[in-house]
Amino acid sequence: MVILGVDPGTNRAGYGLIKKENSNLSLIAYGCLDIKSGSNRTDNLLTLHNYFLDLIKKHQPDVLAIEKLFFFKNAKTVTQVSEARGVLILAGVKSGLAIREFTPLEVKQAVSAYGRAGKEAVQKMVRLILSLEHDPHPDDAADALATAICCAHTSDTLHAT
Amino acid sequence: MVILGVDPGTNRAGYGLIKKENSNLSLIAYGCLDIKSGSNRTDNLLTLHNYFLDLIKKHQPDVLAIEKLFFFKNAKTVTQVSEARGVLILAGVKSGLAIREFTPLEVKQAVSAYGRAGKEAVQKMVRLILSLEHDPHPDDAADALATAICCAHTSDTLHAT
Repeated sequence: MVILGVDPGTNRAGYGLIKKENSNLSLIAYGCLDIKSGSNRTDNLLTLHNYFLDLIKKHQPDVLAIEKLFFFKNAKTVTQVSEARGVLILAGVKSGLAIREFTPLEVKQAVSAYGRAGKEAVQKMVRLILSLEHDPHPDDAADALATAICCAHTSDTLHAT
Repeated sequence: MVILGVDPGTNRAGYGLIKKENSNLSLIAYGCLDIKSGSNRTDNLLTLHNYFLDLIKKHQPDVLAIEKLFFFKNAKTVTQVSEARGVLILAGVKSGLAIREFTPLEVKQAVSAYGRAGKEAVQKMVRLILSLEHDPHPDDAADALATAICCAHTSDTLHAT
Protein backbone atom coordinates (compact mmCIF):
# COMPACT_ATOMS: atom_id res chain seq x y z
CA MET A 1 0.00 0.00 0.00
CA VAL A 2 1.23 3.50 -0.85
CA ILE A 3 0.40 6.34 1.52
CA LEU A 4 0.62 10.04 0.71
CA GLY A 5 1.03 12.17 3.82
CA VAL A 6 0.43 15.90 3.41
CA ASP A 7 1.09 18.93 5.61
CA PRO A 8 -0.64 22.02 4.28
CA GLY A 9 0.32 25.54 5.30
CA THR A 10 -0.50 29.01 4.08
CA ASN A 11 2.52 29.40 1.78
CA ARG A 12 3.79 25.86 1.41
CA ALA A 13 2.67 22.27 1.53
CA GLY A 14 4.84 19.33 2.51
CA TYR A 15 4.31 15.84 1.18
CA GLY A 16 5.70 12.41 1.97
CA LEU A 17 5.06 9.18 0.09
CA ILE A 18 5.79 5.85 1.74
CA LYS A 19 5.18 2.22 0.88
CA LYS A 20 3.86 -0.28 3.41
CA GLU A 21 4.56 -3.95 2.69
CA ASN A 22 3.49 -6.20 5.55
CA SER A 23 5.00 -4.31 8.46
CA ASN A 24 7.86 -2.78 6.47
CA LEU A 25 7.80 0.91 5.68
CA SER A 26 9.96 2.44 2.96
CA LEU A 27 10.34 5.88 1.46
CA ILE A 28 9.14 6.66 -2.05
CA ALA A 29 9.55 10.43 -2.17
CA TYR A 30 9.16 13.56 -0.12
CA GLY A 31 9.30 17.29 -0.70
CA CYS A 32 7.59 20.59 -0.32
CA LEU A 33 5.68 22.87 -2.66
CA ASP A 34 6.65 26.47 -1.99
CA ILE A 35 4.09 29.02 -3.05
CA LYS A 36 5.53 32.47 -3.57
CA SER A 37 4.48 34.87 -0.87
CA GLY A 38 2.81 37.85 -2.46
CA SER A 39 1.20 35.77 -5.17
CA ASN A 40 -2.59 35.72 -5.40
CA ARG A 41 -4.03 33.66 -2.54
CA THR A 42 -7.00 32.33 -4.49
CA ASP A 43 -4.85 31.41 -7.51
CA ASN A 44 -2.56 29.53 -5.12
CA LEU A 45 -5.41 27.14 -4.34
CA LEU A 46 -5.39 26.03 -7.98
CA THR A 47 -1.58 25.70 -7.99
CA LEU A 48 -1.77 23.55 -4.86
CA HIS A 49 -4.64 21.42 -6.16
CA ASN A 50 -2.98 20.76 -9.53
CA TYR A 51 0.41 19.99 -7.95
CA PHE A 52 -1.12 17.29 -5.76
CA LEU A 53 -3.23 15.90 -8.61
CA ASP A 54 0.01 15.44 -10.58
CA LEU A 55 1.77 13.91 -7.57
CA ILE A 56 -1.09 11.42 -7.10
CA LYS A 57 -1.12 10.57 -10.81
CA LYS A 58 2.64 9.93 -10.73
CA HIS A 59 2.83 7.81 -7.58
CA GLN A 60 -0.66 6.27 -7.45
CA PRO A 61 -1.09 6.24 -3.66
CA ASP A 62 -4.02 4.39 -2.06
CA VAL A 63 -4.54 6.75 0.86
CA LEU A 64 -4.16 10.44 1.57
CA ALA A 65 -3.26 11.09 5.22
CA ILE A 66 -3.61 14.57 6.70
CA GLU A 67 -3.50 16.17 10.14
CA LYS A 68 -6.64 17.57 11.70
CA LEU A 69 -6.39 21.23 12.59
CA PHE A 70 -6.64 21.73 16.32
CA PHE A 71 -4.52 24.66 17.36
CA PHE A 72 -5.51 28.09 16.24
CA LYS A 73 -2.83 30.72 16.49
CA ASN A 74 -4.97 33.21 14.65
CA ALA A 75 -8.20 33.30 12.70
CA LYS A 76 -6.66 34.25 9.36
CA THR A 77 -4.23 31.34 9.46
CA VAL A 78 -6.87 28.76 10.31
CA THR A 79 -9.18 29.81 7.48
CA GLN A 80 -6.33 29.86 4.94
CA VAL A 81 -4.91 26.50 6.03
CA SER A 82 -8.42 25.01 6.01
CA GLU A 83 -9.00 26.26 2.47
CA ALA A 84 -5.72 24.59 1.47
CA ARG A 85 -6.85 21.41 3.26
CA GLY A 86 -10.10 21.54 1.29
CA VAL A 87 -8.41 21.59 -2.13
CA LEU A 88 -5.85 18.93 -1.08
CA ILE A 89 -8.57 16.59 0.18
CA LEU A 90 -10.50 17.29 -3.02
CA ALA A 91 -7.47 16.18 -5.07
CA GLY A 92 -7.48 12.91 -3.10
CA VAL A 93 -11.23 12.28 -3.35
CA LYS A 94 -11.26 13.09 -7.09
CA SER A 95 -8.47 10.55 -7.58
CA GLY A 96 -10.32 7.84 -5.65
CA LEU A 97 -8.04 7.81 -2.60
CA ALA A 98 -9.26 6.98 0.89
CA ILE A 99 -8.88 10.03 3.15
CA ARG A 100 -7.60 9.56 6.68
CA GLU A 101 -7.28 12.36 9.24
CA PHE A 102 -5.22 12.29 12.44
CA THR A 103 -4.77 14.61 15.38
CA PRO A 104 -1.33 16.19 15.83
CA LEU A 105 -1.00 14.09 19.01
CA GLU A 106 -1.67 10.86 17.11
CA VAL A 107 0.97 11.78 14.53
CA LYS A 108 3.60 12.60 17.14
CA GLN A 109 2.85 9.46 19.12
CA ALA A 110 3.29 7.39 15.94
CA VAL A 111 6.90 8.54 15.54
CA SER A 112 7.99 8.97 19.14
CA ALA A 113 7.48 7.42 22.54
CA TYR A 114 5.42 10.37 23.67
CA GLY A 115 3.17 12.97 22.11
CA ARG A 116 5.09 16.15 22.71
CA ALA A 117 8.08 15.60 20.44
CA GLY A 118 9.62 18.74 18.94
CA LYS A 119 10.36 19.30 15.26
CA GLU A 120 13.90 17.88 15.47
CA ALA A 121 12.80 14.76 17.35
CA VAL A 122 10.14 14.10 14.71
CA GLN A 123 12.73 14.47 11.92
CA LYS A 124 15.15 12.07 13.64
CA MET A 125 12.47 9.46 14.27
CA VAL A 126 11.19 9.68 10.69
CA ARG A 127 14.79 9.13 9.52
CA LEU A 128 15.17 6.05 11.73
CA ILE A 129 11.78 4.53 10.88
CA LEU A 130 12.33 4.92 7.13
CA SER A 131 16.11 4.20 7.25
CA LEU A 132 17.00 7.49 5.60
CA GLU A 133 20.59 8.72 5.37
CA HIS A 134 19.69 12.20 6.59
CA ASP A 135 16.95 13.88 8.59
CA PRO A 136 14.17 14.91 6.18
CA HIS A 137 13.84 18.65 5.57
CA PRO A 138 12.06 21.00 5.61
CA ASP A 139 9.77 20.57 8.63
CA ASP A 140 6.71 20.45 6.37
CA ALA A 141 8.03 17.40 4.51
CA ALA A 142 9.08 15.68 7.77
CA ASP A 143 5.62 16.30 9.23
CA ALA A 144 4.00 14.93 6.08
CA LEU A 145 6.13 11.78 6.35
CA ALA A 146 5.22 11.46 10.05
CA THR A 147 1.53 11.69 9.10
CA ALA A 148 1.99 8.96 6.49
CA ILE A 149 3.79 6.77 9.10
CA CYS A 150 0.95 7.38 11.56
CA CYS A 151 -1.52 6.26 8.90
CA ALA A 152 0.55 3.13 8.18
CA HIS A 153 0.41 2.20 11.88
CA THR A 154 -3.37 2.24 12.03
CA SER A 155 -5.05 -1.03 11.25
CA ASP A 156 -8.03 0.40 9.40
CA THR A 157 -6.00 2.51 7.02
CA LEU A 158 -8.29 1.96 4.08
CA HIS A 159 -11.50 2.93 5.81
CA ALA A 160 -12.29 6.44 4.72
CA THR A 161 -13.33 8.83 7.47
CA MET B 1 -21.62 41.40 -16.15
CA VAL B 2 -22.86 38.27 -14.40
CA ILE B 3 -22.03 37.77 -10.72
CA LEU B 4 -22.26 34.49 -8.82
CA GLY B 5 -22.66 35.03 -5.08
CA VAL B 6 -22.07 32.01 -2.85
CA ASP B 7 -22.73 31.28 0.81
CA PRO B 8 -20.99 28.09 1.91
CA GLY B 9 -21.95 26.20 5.05
CA THR B 10 -21.14 22.80 6.50
CA ASN B 11 -24.17 20.97 5.08
CA ARG B 12 -25.44 23.31 2.41
CA ALA B 13 -24.32 26.06 0.06
CA GLY B 14 -26.48 28.89 -1.20
CA TYR B 15 -25.95 30.57 -4.54
CA GLY B 16 -27.35 33.61 -6.29
CA LEU B 17 -26.69 34.72 -9.85
CA ILE B 18 -27.42 38.29 -10.89
CA LYS B 19 -26.81 40.37 -13.98
CA LYS B 20 -25.48 43.92 -13.82
CA GLU B 21 -26.20 46.14 -16.82
CA ASN B 22 -25.13 49.73 -16.25
CA SER B 23 -26.63 50.32 -12.83
CA ASN B 24 -29.49 47.84 -13.24
CA LEU B 25 -29.42 44.59 -11.34
CA SER B 26 -31.60 41.64 -12.30
CA LEU B 27 -31.98 38.09 -11.07
CA ILE B 28 -30.78 35.14 -13.13
CA ALA B 29 -31.20 32.28 -10.65
CA TYR B 30 -30.80 31.36 -7.02
CA GLY B 31 -30.95 28.22 -4.94
CA CYS B 32 -29.24 26.05 -2.42
CA LEU B 33 -27.34 22.78 -2.61
CA ASP B 34 -28.30 20.58 0.32
CA ILE B 35 -25.76 17.97 1.26
CA LYS B 36 -27.18 15.09 3.22
CA SER B 37 -26.12 15.15 6.82
CA GLY B 38 -24.48 11.87 7.66
CA SER B 39 -22.84 11.57 4.26
CA ASN B 40 -19.06 11.45 4.07
CA ARG B 41 -17.61 14.90 4.80
CA THR B 42 -14.64 14.57 2.46
CA ASP B 43 -16.80 13.20 -0.39
CA ASN B 44 -19.10 16.19 0.11
CA LEU B 45 -16.25 18.49 -0.94
CA LEU B 46 -16.26 16.84 -4.38
CA THR B 47 -20.08 17.08 -4.61
CA LEU B 48 -19.88 20.79 -3.77
CA HIS B 49 -17.02 21.47 -6.18
CA ASN B 50 -18.69 19.68 -9.10
CA TYR B 51 -22.06 21.31 -8.44
CA PHE B 52 -20.54 24.77 -8.66
CA LEU B 53 -18.42 23.87 -11.70
CA ASP B 54 -21.67 22.89 -13.47
CA LEU B 55 -23.43 26.05 -12.28
CA ILE B 56 -20.58 28.19 -13.63
CA LYS B 57 -20.56 26.31 -16.93
CA LYS B 58 -24.30 26.83 -17.31
CA HIS B 59 -24.49 30.52 -16.43
CA GLN B 60 -21.00 31.75 -17.38
CA PRO B 61 -20.56 34.34 -14.61
CA ASP B 62 -17.62 36.76 -14.68
CA VAL B 63 -17.09 37.01 -10.95
CA LEU B 64 -17.47 34.78 -7.91
CA ALA B 65 -18.36 36.78 -4.78
CA ILE B 66 -18.02 35.21 -1.34
CA GLU B 67 -18.11 36.38 2.28
CA LYS B 68 -14.97 36.39 4.37
CA LEU B 69 -15.22 34.30 7.50
CA PHE B 70 -14.94 36.46 10.58
CA PHE B 71 -17.05 35.02 13.33
CA PHE B 72 -16.08 31.72 14.83
CA LYS B 73 -18.77 29.96 16.78
CA ASN B 74 -16.63 26.89 17.12
CA ALA B 75 -13.42 25.49 15.76
CA LYS B 76 -14.97 22.54 13.94
CA THR B 77 -17.39 24.75 12.06
CA VAL B 78 -14.74 27.22 10.92
CA THR B 79 -12.45 24.52 9.54
CA GLN B 80 -15.30 22.77 7.72
CA VAL B 81 -16.72 25.98 6.25
CA SER B 82 -13.22 27.07 5.21
CA GLU B 83 -12.64 23.74 3.45
CA ALA B 84 -15.92 24.30 1.58
CA ARG B 85 -14.79 27.85 0.76
CA GLY B 86 -11.55 26.40 -0.62
CA VAL B 87 -13.25 24.06 -3.09
CA LEU B 88 -15.79 26.73 -4.11
CA ILE B 89 -13.07 29.31 -4.78
CA LEU B 90 -11.14 26.62 -6.67
CA ALA B 91 -14.20 26.06 -8.92
CA GLY B 92 -14.17 29.80 -9.69
CA VAL B 93 -10.42 30.09 -10.29
CA LYS B 94 -10.40 26.96 -12.50
CA SER B 95 -13.19 28.50 -14.58
CA GLY B 96 -11.34 31.80 -15.02
CA LEU B 97 -13.60 33.88 -12.77
CA ALA B 98 -12.37 36.85 -10.76
CA ILE B 99 -12.75 36.14 -7.04
CA ARG B 100 -14.03 38.87 -4.75
CA GLU B 101 -14.34 38.56 -0.97
CA PHE B 102 -16.39 40.77 1.33
CA THR B 103 -16.83 41.06 5.07
CA PRO B 104 -20.28 40.21 6.48
CA LEU B 105 -20.60 43.90 7.39
CA GLU B 106 -19.93 45.01 3.80
CA VAL B 107 -22.57 42.57 2.53
CA LYS B 108 -25.22 43.75 5.01
CA GLN B 109 -24.44 47.40 4.33
CA ALA B 110 -24.89 46.76 0.61
CA VAL B 111 -28.51 45.66 1.09
CA SER B 112 -29.58 47.78 4.02
CA ALA B 113 -29.04 51.21 5.47
CA TYR B 114 -26.97 49.80 8.30
CA GLY B 115 -24.75 46.85 8.90
CA ARG B 116 -26.67 44.91 11.52
CA ALA B 117 -29.68 43.78 9.49
CA GLY B 118 -31.22 40.47 10.51
CA LYS B 119 -31.98 37.56 8.19
CA GLU B 120 -35.51 38.75 7.40
CA ALA B 121 -34.41 42.31 6.66
CA VAL B 122 -31.76 41.00 4.25
CA GLN B 123 -34.35 38.86 2.45
CA LYS B 124 -36.78 41.79 2.10
CA MET B 125 -34.07 44.13 0.79
CA VAL B 126 -32.82 41.53 -1.69
CA ARG B 127 -36.42 41.16 -2.93
CA LEU B 128 -36.79 44.93 -3.39
CA ILE B 129 -33.39 45.45 -5.05
CA LEU B 130 -33.96 42.63 -7.54
CA SER B 131 -37.73 43.25 -7.94
CA LEU B 132 -38.64 39.71 -6.93
CA GLU B 133 -42.22 38.66 -6.26
CA HIS B 134 -41.31 36.91 -3.00
CA ASP B 135 -38.57 37.02 -0.39
CA PRO B 136 -35.81 34.65 -1.48
CA HIS B 137 -35.48 31.48 0.59
CA PRO B 138 -33.70 29.78 2.23
CA ASP B 139 -31.39 32.12 4.16
CA ASP B 140 -28.34 30.66 2.42
CA ALA B 141 -29.67 31.67 -1.02
CA ALA B 142 -30.72 35.14 0.22
CA ASP B 143 -27.25 35.66 1.70
CA ALA B 144 -25.63 34.54 -1.54
CA LEU B 145 -27.76 37.05 -3.48
CA ALA B 146 -26.84 39.78 -0.98
CA THR B 147 -23.16 38.97 -1.52
CA ALA B 148 -23.63 39.22 -5.30
CA ILE B 149 -25.41 42.59 -4.86
CA CYS B 150 -22.56 43.80 -2.63
CA CYS B 151 -20.10 42.83 -5.36
CA ALA B 152 -22.16 44.64 -8.00
CA HIS B 153 -22.00 47.83 -5.91
CA THR B 154 -18.21 47.90 -5.76
CA SER B 155 -16.54 49.77 -8.55
CA ASP B 156 -13.56 47.48 -8.93
CA THR B 157 -15.60 44.31 -9.24
CA LEU B 158 -13.32 42.70 -11.76
CA HIS B 159 -10.12 43.14 -9.81
CA ALA B 160 -9.34 39.82 -8.24
CA THR B 161 -8.33 39.93 -4.59
